[in-house]
Amino acid sequence: MTPTIGVFDSGFGGLTVLRALLTQIPQARYCFLGDTARLPYGSKSRRTIAKYAVESAQFLVHEQGAEFLVIACNTASALALDAIQEAVPVPVLGVIEPGAQAARAASISGDVLVIATDATVQSHAYAEACKARGLHGIERACPLLVPLVEEGWTGYLPGDSPEQAVTAQVIRIYLDQLLADAATQSLQPDTLVLGCTHYPLLRPLIEAAVPAGMRVIDSAEATAEQAAIKFGCHTKAAGATDPSHLGTRESDTPQIRCFATDSVEKFERLGSRFLGRPTGTVELVDLGG
Amino acid sequence: MTPTIGVFDSGFGGLTVLRALLTQIPQARYCFLGDTARLPYGSKSRRTIAKYAVESAQFLVHEQGAEFLVIACNTASALALDAIQEAVPVPVLGVIEPGAQAARAASISGDVLVIATDATVQSHAYAEACKARGLHGIERACPLLVPLVEEGWTGYLPGDSPEQAVTAQVIRIYLDQLLADAATQSLQPDTLVLGCTHYPLLRPLIEAAVPAGMRVIDSAEATAEQAAIKFGCHTKAAGATDPSHLGTRESDTPQIRCFATDSVEKFERLGSRFLGRPTGTVELVDLGG
Repeated sequence: MTPTIGVFDSGFGGLTVLRALLTQIPQARYCFLGDTARLPYGSKSRRTIAKYAVESAQFLVHEQGAEFLVIACNTASALALDAIQEAVPVPVLGVIEPGAQAARAASISGDVLVIATDATVQSHAYAEACKARGLHGIERACPLLVPLVEEGWTGYLPGDSPEQAVTAQVIRIYLDQLLADAATQSLQPDTLVLGCTHYPLLRPLIEAAVPAGMRVIDSAEATAEQAAIKFGCHTKAAGATDPSHLGTRESDTPQIRCFATDSVEKFERLGSRFLGRPTGTVELVDLGG
Repeated sequence: MTPTIGVFDSGFGGLTVLRALLTQIPQARYCFLGDTARLPYGSKSRRTIAKYAVESAQFLVHEQGAEFLVIACNTASALALDAIQEAVPVPVLGVIEPGAQAARAASISGDVLVIATDATVQSHAYAEACKARGLHGIERACPLLVPLVEEGWTGYLPGDSPEQAVTAQVIRIYLDQLLADAATQSLQPDTLVLGCTHYPLLRPLIEAAVPAGMRVIDSAEATAEQAAIKFGCHTKAAGATDPSHLGTRESDTPQIRCFATDSVEKFERLGSRFLGRPTGTVELVDLGG
């Protein structure tokens, strides 16, 4: 079985989710769509976001033959998941529920920190998903982290560059404020959720900045794990107990087609950093509007 | 004479230009439009930017009665000034030519540094405006500065906060790279143009970071000075030689109406920092599209 999985984001940050999917379901065919012409979704109304997200989902299902959809975009997951599920006849998974699910498995105290973009925090989608699982989520918007990642000032630079030191300092400032907020409320957070698809690129710097013993949950990884279960196409490549699935041709040369509605150049230039390999040629599509 | 001046930006950064206009032409009536529903312009095509900018200009002229227009947006000034001038029957001034003009007046070596957003740098509008005046412009995109300003980590915080230290360090990194570029080309820059309407809020930190003797040109101020000359409505309030214009009721309580196409809340919350006084109630307008 070679399932076709559609992955959708307003930009190209969702390529970190595709990267995690390649580990979990290496044998699938992937179509990734970045609706770059209409980003950022975060500043738009729920109705507009739902319209854009449904059009994007329909492109992946009806024109690219996706049998499963992953909404690798926090804003669309928070505001448009229901609309997408109603609009397409295939299983749909967002990034927020899997992130909260993984936090539930990791947290002992039940108090969970969530860092995300302004739009995601304002939706309180993570706090609600935490609450539904008996967790207390403490959210904070970290608006500088996306531009720092897009500028390439991440934790993967060699040595101790001044650029990396800036990013480490910004992360420290945000975390200090978040931990102070938690302390004011007498909470004892033991888990931090990375609630933005850009943040996995900052993981080494974030792990260096959190208090000792705090677990860091990458919602991209959590989503890919849930996708493998929900879509019923789990291979054991990640778990590595069935050697027949390891090192196959499929996982070495994944089948990926990337589409964008604008800014193909920026997508190709930055996308490989998020995907962990070249994106290949990105195809321009016009969804109207 | 109480002229009505329309001021247009894709967002609210152009309020720094309105602030400078209030100093130069305090007696005017002002209508400011931020096309916040359709920002950022920087990632869009020239045709789309021209369409949006023309619609915005027509709103200010035909619906708000603007007799003069200031395009307080670097991207629209770079890519749509001609289209706007053709579309409306009033004098129109952008921010790029006045910035280059002021650099010409300030520079002795003829080598001028320009910092701006990615979109403005990619248009090379400042380099061309410099070249037309016999200057050599060395441009650099500084994508982190707008988010740092919008996060409020600017040079006006009291004391020596860690936030302000981050911004100072980012400015140092960008300037070091720019000065190294200039040195590689054996250039001797003596002037720095702030080619983005957000940057005046960083002026104290930028002035502290430039080499001794380097002049810093604020294109918002340069544009307001040119507007007073071009629109023939110069008062001597700024020059302060005609006391009859100083401390008049008009300059104490400027007449400003602000419009936005979306995100009124963010506009009101952040706008006052750019304008240097409260924006008042921001009115929502629908320009279609």
